[in-house]
Amino acid sequence: MDFKATDIAAFLDGEIVGNGNVRVSNVSKIEEGKPGTLAFLANNKYENYIYTTKASAVLVNKSFIPREEIEATLIKVDDAYEAFASLLDLYVQSKADSKKGIEQPSYISDKAKTGENIYVGAFAYVGKNAKVGDNVKIYPQAYIGDNVTIGDDCIIYAGVKIYDDCVIGNRCILHSGAVIGSDGFGFAPQKDGSYKKIHQIGNTVLEDDVEIGANTTIDCGTMGSTLIHKGVKLDNLVQVAHNVEIGEHTVSAAQTGISGSVKVGKNCMFGGQVGIAGHITVGNNVLVGAQSGVNSSAKDDQKLLGSPAIDIRKALRAYGLIKDLPEIRKDVIHLKKEMNSGKNNK
Amino acid sequence: MDFKATDIAAFLDGEIVGNGNVRVSNVSKIEEGKPGTLAFLANNKYENYIYTTKASAVLVNKSFIPREEIEATLIKVDDAYEAFASLLDLYVQSKADSKKGIEQPSYISDKAKTGENIYVGAFAYVGKNAKVGDNVKIYPQAYIGDNVTIGDDCIIYAGVKIYDDCVIGNRCILHSGAVIGSDGFGFAPQKDGSYKKIHQIGNTVLEDDVEIGANTTIDCGTMGSTLIHKGVKLDNLVQVAHNVEIGEHTVSAAQTGISGSVKVGKNCMFGGQVGIAGHITVGNNVLVGAQSGVNSSAKDDQKLLGSPAIDIRKALRAYGLIKDLPEIRKDVIHLKKEMNSGKNNK
Amino acid sequence: MDFKATDIAAFLDGEIVGNGNVRVSNVSKIEEGKPGTLAFLANNKYENYIYTTKASAVLVNKSFIPREEIEATLIKVDDAYEAFASLLDLYVQSKADSKKGIEQPSYISDKAKTGENIYVGAFAYVGKNAKVGDNVKIYPQAYIGDNVTIGDDCIIYAGVKIYDDCVIGNRCILHSGAVIGSDGFGFAPQKDGSYKKIHQIGNTVLEDDVEIGANTTIDCGTMGSTLIHKGVKLDNLVQVAHNVEIGEHTVSAAQTGISGSVKVGKNCMFGGQVGIAGHITVGNNVLVGAQSGVNSSAKDDQKLLGSPAIDIRKALRAYGLIKDLPEIRKDVIHLKKEMNSGKNNK
Repeated sequence: MDFKATDIAAFLDGEIVGNGNVRVSNVSKIEEGKPGTLAFLANNKYENYIYTTKASAVLVNKSFIPREEIEATLIKVDDAYEAFASLLDLYVQSKADSKKGIEQPSYISDKAKTGENIYVGAFAYVGKNAKVGDNVKIYPQAYIGDNVTIGDDCIIYAGVKIYDDCVIGNRCILHSGAVIGSDGFGFAPQKDGSYKKIHQIGNTVLEDDVEIGANTTIDCGTMGSTLIHKGVKLDNLVQVAHNVEIGEHTVSAAQTGISGSVKVGKNCMFGGQVGIAGHITVGNNVLVGAQSGVNSSAKDDQKLLGSPAIDIRKALRAYGLIKDLPEIRKDVIHLKKEMNSGKNNK
Repeated sequence: MDFKATDIAAFLDGEIVGNGNVRVSNVSKIEEGKPGTLAFLANNKYENYIYTTKASAVLVNKSFIPREEIEATLIKVDDAYEAFASLLDLYVQSKADSKKGIEQPSYISDKAKTGENIYVGAFAYVGKNAKVGDNVKIYPQAYIGDNVTIGDDCIIYAGVKIYDDCVIGNRCILHSGAVIGSDGFGFAPQKDGSYKKIHQIGNTVLEDDVEIGANTTIDCGTMGSTLIHKGVKLDNLVQVAHNVEIGEHTVSAAQTGISGSVKVGKNCMFGGQVGIAGHITVGNNVLVGAQSGVNSSAKDDQKLLGSPAIDIRKALRAYGLIKDLPEIRKDVIHLKKEMNSGKNNK
Repeated sequence: MDFKATDIAAFLDGEIVGNGNVRVSNVSKIEEGKPGTLAFLANNKYENYIYTTKASAVLVNKSFIPREEIEATLIKVDDAYEAFASLLDLYVQSKADSKKGIEQPSYISDKAKTGENIYVGAFAYVGKNAKVGDNVKIYPQAYIGDNVTIGDDCIIYAGVKIYDDCVIGNRCILHSGAVIGSDGFGFAPQKDGSYKKIHQIGNTVLEDDVEIGANTTIDCGTMGSTLIHKGVKLDNLVQVAHNVEIGEHTVSAAQTGISGSVKVGKNCMFGGQVGIAGHITVGNNVLVGAQSGVNSSAKDDQKLLGSPAIDIRKALRAYGLIKDLPEIRKDVIHLKKEMNSGKNNK
């Protein structure tokens, strides 16, 4: 993007204070503003930065009255934050719009069905009987296996791998390196100590509005589906095992692992590096702190922390006392001595 | 697949009860059965589901006598579980058989040697002097570096990366995003606080029947080999550092990390998110619970849990008592007070 | 490589003892020496191995005087370790030199600028307005997004993904599957329990001499940059969230996660599977032990361990006492009983 301050003011129905001819080609935070960028000031806490910012232009509320001189061009609007957000929407949209058409070489099976207005990057692969919806962007080197269904308006970033038979809803975003539908980890122990592979013939289903982080892995069901309900957001390097079900609008930070056949409810929040043991049920609105190990089922609205995980308020006190264990033990040893010497003195 | 119930009965030498003309095109669990699928009932615990399942056909043992009417077509066989498993084998085999030939564009160095009956997907890369055995499937966008050797009957899924000089045995399965033979993490600290890279010139060797999960990483040896013995199964997002050796038929759940130069014995089982400290030895048949941190060598048959890891029975009690620390400390403080007041009263 | 012992001796200005005509084509550790390899003996601790090694030739210090007969050809040099290291440098350099030119098919936007003497592997992608420096190696299936800048002498291994607008310094090494510049995990909670994506429009900047492990993920800044300063080395499967800043020459072992907006100082060392909570500051020269959870800011030179992390010396004692909790509690219960019976007896 490259705009004059007056263009932005016109678009936002705002008012210029200062040089309307400055040009901006990017955005910045007001505290890190650089020449050629547009920043915004919505929260008074940050007012001091506006007098020193190097940003060329700053969106401010109409109500804002400077205490000192300001070098940057001001663009006064009704709501600086809203205005900035709408500019961002435009920016992201225009960037996305630049990706269209089918780059060559790419591989789209002649048995695949593709929607309108899609982007397929070079070296992307779309397998047999795959269905790709409208306005989908498949970046370079992404792999869409046979019989995969992808809804409308999805973004599949470079190098995503989707195994055969998986289903992706509408408006899903899959980041680079995410693997969807890899085999569940299932092996039958044999008498000689070796393991025989249990065929993993299920699939993975992502409902609408799901976002999956970079290098996150979601295995297919052994039979049936691993099921990620609508609105779920998973950060990077998360592991979701076979036959897991994650309820609507549950979110998890990075590096969390959810073991096989776990059922997670709606609107849960998991911190990073959490582990959830296999075959348990986690209710709705459950909050799990970072690095916790949840090894038994959790009821609706529980807040858990620690490994093993317990109620978060108890955990904050209890795990915080581990550092006092040497003193506690010393006291106990001392008390035992005193008690014994007390007896001996009788 | 798409079969009539009578075809399946004929193949399995079974007997039809009900409508032999129903068709099935997939399998399902009896408790989640859908029209057009085949389920099985082997365990009496699940008998109730057979009266309500929506599956079109169900494999049952010849000995099974229904208590009520059943809508699904029954196929009576000697052993319903075995029969189902053999159908699955067929299904998986027929699916795999559909992948053959060399898709274009792909890159196979004219100095590479490839076996018979292989599949090379589009955008796959096979480097100089690489040797690929018979019946190997290399999916799209997989990378086989120079001088890599791959045995017979392997499956290398989309986007797997194998660095130069690595060796993969027979019947190995590598899932998407797995990285084999990346540089070990070795740097020599310099006087100015910077680090100089130590060249990593070894390789990674996977023996026969090894399965590696999605996005798992196995570094090469600094010198010599990182060695994964036959039958080892590693789940997704596992980290194996340089010069590690993992014994036969050891299995590890997801997100576990094994530090440099660790030797792990045979038939071990590691839970998820386990960490093994560098340069230690873990014996045979060692079991390590999820999220444990093993920081010293473990003998054969040990069962460990916790971070730091201790004997599992002790750990279950000891780590379970962390939640009681506030009460324990309160008691100790109270006892000290009483002890002091007792003294003062003398 | 394939050299006669006399060639190596001539190159190193060394002296042959034994058969100068033996040929070596690889290197090995003296304790694992195989025929056709060159080993070295620098540390007297390993002297015993020289009498039994199967290596064909061994570099030794001029001062070395054998106690027994040695089968291998000796090459005597001033400093055996230095000589070996310089041979390794040569070997690695010659191997790297073999990768040059543009393999086909690859995709280089006609709006990209590429330097001299680069290697671009088949199926690699270089986007619009990307700038690639001199002597850069871009391995097969790597993805360089639009507007990405890559300095000189970098190695981008197979399958690395670099999102639009990111900046990579000189002499950086990125291992397979690493993802640079993926979206930060930012979502605004809505009244109906769903989440609205917050556009992530920043980038990721790697300064000079940074090495990034396999399948490691570094998100872009929400606005502004995620900033990895010069000389930082990150192992495999590490997660770095949006707007993190990591100081010069800080190193982290595998599977560590650093949450959003954390500032990490210079010359820190993080063990594996460490978690750093969001928005905190970690000073310079901070050491964090494996599996620790750092949930508050750390000052310069602190050494931390445990989850929650505390001073490492305290942690070693305190976490080590968890195993004694059952006994401590038993003692406390016993003391309470005795105290009560003491009172009752009065």
